[in-house]
Amino acid sequence: METLILTAADLRGVVTEVGLDRLMDELIERLENALLERTATLEVPARDGFSYHSPEPGLLEWMPCHDVLGRVTCKFVGYHPRNPEARGLPTILSTIGCWDATSGHLRVIADGTLLTALRTGAASAIATRLLAREGAVTLGLVGCGAQAVSQLHGLSRVVELRRVLIHDIDPRAASSFAHRVAPLGLHLRPEVVPLDELVREADVISTQTTVEVDHGPVFPDRNLRPWVHVNAVGSDFPGKTEVPVTLLDRALICPDFRAQAIREGECQQVAAERIGPSLADLVCAREKMAHARAEPTVFDSTGWALEDDVALELVLSHAKALGIGARVEIEWASEDPRDPYAGLPPRGTAVEAKQRALDIAPRAASGM
Amino acid sequence: METLILTAADLRGVVTEVGLDRLMDELIERLENALLERTATLEVPARDGFSYHSPEPGLLEWMPCHDVLGRVTCKFVGYHPRNPEARGLPTILSTIGCWDATSGHLRVIADGTLLTALRTGAASAIATRLLAREGAVTLGLVGCGAQAVSQLHGLSRVVELRRVLIHDIDPRAASSFAHRVAPLGLHLRPEVVPLDELVREADVISTQTTVEVDHGPVFPDRNLRPWVHVNAVGSDFPGKTEVPVTLLDRALICPDFRAQAIREGECQQVAAERIGPSLADLVCAREKMAHARAEPTVFDSTGWALEDDVALELVLSHAKALGIGARVEIEWASEDPRDPYAGLPPRGTAVEAKQRALDIAPRAASGM
Repeated sequence: METLILTAADLRGVVTEVGLDRLMDELIERLENALLERTATLEVPARDGFSYHSPEPGLLEWMPCHDVLGRVTCKFVGYHPRNPEARGLPTILSTIGCWDATSGHLRVIADGTLLTALRTGAASAIATRLLAREGAVTLGLVGCGAQAVSQLHGLSRVVELRRVLIHDIDPRAASSFAHRVAPLGLHLRPEVVPLDELVREADVISTQTTVEVDHGPVFPDRNLRPWVHVNAVGSDFPGKTEVPVTLLDRALICPDFRAQAIREGECQQVAAERIGPSLADLVCAREKMAHARAEPTVFDSTGWALEDDVALELVLSHAKALGIGARVEIEWASEDPRDPYAGLPPRGTAVEAKQRALDIAPRAASGM
Repeated sequence: METLILTAADLRGVVTEVGLDRLMDELIERLENALLERTATLEVPARDGFSYHSPEPGLLEWMPCHDVLGRVTCKFVGYHPRNPEARGLPTILSTIGCWDATSGHLRVIADGTLLTALRTGAASAIATRLLAREGAVTLGLVGCGAQAVSQLHGLSRVVELRRVLIHDIDPRAASSFAHRVAPLGLHLRPEVVPLDELVREADVISTQTTVEVDHGPVFPDRNLRPWVHVNAVGSDFPGKTEVPVTLLDRALICPDFRAQAIREGECQQVAAERIGPSLADLVCAREKMAHARAEPTVFDSTGWALEDDVALELVLSHAKALGIGARVEIEWASEDPRDPYAGLPPRGTAVEAKQRALDIAPRAASGM
């Protein structure tokens, strides 16, 4: 009963062999197919988690997803904004497991950090392809951390970008961005611009910030393009929002996962009747929604466990084909499923006797 | 940023070196201390999970536990009653992870199957030591599967047992029990008896069955000892109960975790005002509760995440001292926490070019 451990080095091997662009393209395609075909066999509760202010402010959430065909995937995702400065670690650090829902066996444990970045980029790519104006060429990125890299990557696969305008309240994050996206080979240089210029020029805006609760929005509703499409990626907690409410009031709002978006996404800011079709609805009814391209639109991306499930299965299929990953036996299972102690040395053997000689007195005698 | 993988073989190494009895004694002591001292710094939501009837009936639950000092433990536990016959696997199969609540880093992944058996036995031992009649000597076990082994083990460490009466509706489970508990070295032989005899003779009864929803109770309220203490271990799902309601109506009922017991334990069967102190309350007020030893008492054991946390930390402390366990890097973390793609080969390298030559046409061009 083996568990596949996909280490960071294994994952690096997969990405290196497959190539970042091919992986993103496949992820976009698989995710779109899953949105079309798999939502009927899925059970996805809104995520739950612990939030705390000590020892440092943070959030640790679990995002489970049950496919009735016999699989449970659960991502654990930490959000610790002090990670980069204090520990040199990503703000979003994550691990993901996949269990066999026939036996309860843990099939896989793997990194969820890169998968989160990739699938968040892929989801925005799908929303943007459906909702952005035809001929959109200018992307604005508000917040230039790790998620901005994969936003640009995902969007670059579906939009013929001519300009990328970037802004971050941390000048270091903005100034290092061009270097970080160099591997994408985009043949354009991201331009650090004032926020006013970004919102005035961008056809598509993606927001991925660590704005604190009640400190949004992260850009003004001023001189926006009439057709602007926004991917609102950062809001993921009650009170944390990035998009101006006046824009939401006139935009088509498309949540990834409606119940969760109402609790912790941009949908917190509007009445229920203002919320439009979900991303899955949109994929299924794309023709009917074509008019939306000319209007302001907001993809409210809080993160959906289906996306993680699809990303994990994609990476696993490549790992399997490439023979990458180690298998270990983690679960305790003896030859007799009713005997948890099978094969253990009986009391009275040398080991046990030695231990007893070393023991402090037990709190109660064990009888005869 | 390493994760400790404690394999089944590693765990076997720990148990072999430490000894089963010492491990159980230490677990009982640590759990009792945790009930006394740690509940104030704990955040334990009632467990959640998926239940299903296809492909086979089962349940996969997660049991998270946050210690505000900076640790999150989460056990995944599957309950699949067809596992023993269909797959030679335990009904309860489980894995457990522990995360650093400062950074979101996965510290440990380990088996939860043996830990579940051990900690469930330890919890019953603590309840029995507090609630059973002084001088109790006869134990009755209803249900002789894997959990019965560790129930007997735990109880044998706190009660001077003279007789162990056992019953199972599956004769194979009953007849193989003596062999399975031989490693405990108890110097008594479990006696397979009719259920009526078991309930008439036992000072302490533990129930650990796979009774189906709405098919309880698993023993009759007939000629029970006036001082009988019951450890009700099996009920862990809405509608699944093991104890006769007439006994609950006159007994002191002690839940491990009140909110969960009301939803899925024996406490489902009684009004809220009939529910007595929790196990933690009992440990803190043991003198005041001494009168209960002469009365019927029921420990409603649904399983509490604190127990798993304590069991994991005990095993980890021994593994560390013994130098057991392998460390691997699972999480994707590059030198630059803002650069998820750091160190990956840039587009246009040989690997990427080769891949592109093999690719199907991408669904959208990437621009310049």
